[in-house]
Amino acid sequence: MKNRILIIALAALTFTAMTSCSSSTESSNLDAVLENIHNRKSVRQFTSEPVSDEHREIMLKAAMAAPTAVNYQPWRFVVVTERAELDAMADVLPYAKMLKQAPLAIVVCGETTWMGGNENPYWDQDCSAATQNILLAAEALGLGAVWTGVYPNAELVNPLSEFLGLPGNVKPFCAIPIGHHDGTTQPKDKWKPENIHYGKW
Amino acid sequence: MKNRILIIALAALTFTAMTSCSSSTESSNLDAVLENIHNRKSVRQFTSEPVSDEHREIMLKAAMAAPTAVNYQPWRFVVVTERAELDAMADVLPYAKMLKQAPLAIVVCGETTWMGGNENPYWDQDCSAATQNILLAAEALGLGAVWTGVYPNAELVNPLSEFLGLPGNVKPFCAIPIGHHDGTTQPKDKWKPENIHYGKW
Repeated sequence: MKNRILIIALAALTFTAMTSCSSSTESSNLDAVLENIHNRKSVRQFTSEPVSDEHREIMLKAAMAAPTAVNYQPWRFVVVTERAELDAMADVLPYAKMLKQAPLAIVVCGETTWMGGNENPYWDQDCSAATQNILLAAEALGLGAVWTGVYPNAELVNPLSEFLGLPGNVKPFCAIPIGHHDGTTQPKDKWKPENIHYGKW
Repeated sequence: MKNRILIIALAALTFTAMTSCSSSTESSNLDAVLENIHNRKSVRQFTSEPVSDEHREIMLKAAMAAPTAVNYQPWRFVVVTERAELDAMADVLPYAKMLKQAPLAIVVCGETTWMGGNENPYWDQDCSAATQNILLAAEALGLGAVWTGVYPNAELVNPLSEFLGLPGNVKPFCAIPIGHHDGTTQPKDKWKPENIHYGKW
């Protein structure tokens, strides 16, 4: 009799453990995505720990999953990991001095040629979406990263193009120093309902 | 004897179910974020089911969690839910005809004034990052959405500004029709390792 009760209790517990785990998967996936979006922050200080090749590829795959205008995929990426190169790039980009600490930088670039030989009017928007995906993937991986603007500032675009040896039809869009952070940087709360208008302005 | 074996088996199963569920939380959060990034797609067909106020606010909160240059937060949002207004906006935006089906549109706009009275050179990049967050939040909510470009195309910017009654210092950036999709649209695989350069170009 005791055994029978024990069996029923354990069976119920197993069922509860299994179903509560699987039935909460959908809502916890949503929670995970939203928490990651809200936990992302601009991290500017890094430890000396390198970023693994695997993590680097995860971020680049996330970048190339972003949408692009008419699916043109104008993005190009330059990956910099050599200490001397990262230091030299910091000298070219005065607003990206944190490159001197970071073990990795991804420079997001755009191939600017468009249909009919004109400049693609959306290449920088596509690069922005790819950049945001890199930042979100970095956050999910427990890494820190920061979007440092390059385009359209000619004082940054020109020297960086020369530094990286970019061809004429490719422009540098932004530089993203990436590394392991010490966990002290907190995300900002930027929620302002007054930024929302309903129907018309 | 049979009962004892059954009890041991059930206890083991309960233990496995409970520990595998909790110990996999960290990796499944990463998986959830990456799957969501890779599952996002441009959804252009919607059912008549409305989008709840709660879901709409979740997407707008995600939008305002994106990074902005020098934390300027130039984004503004116009939320359109009236059927007649959505239909009329579709007539203004020839590349956003799917507004005629969608129960909701978020028009991402930018306040373009910058320090010193110049135009903010990064407002459209900030709006792009906010747009990408909206698309990712929509995907996580099980909704469908599509980024339809407006800026910098004057043939779209001017009539949409007039339609929404935007003040002179605010430009419409993009329109995002959002709704419930029928699940048929699949994400594109855009991973191309040849887009990556190492060290220099």
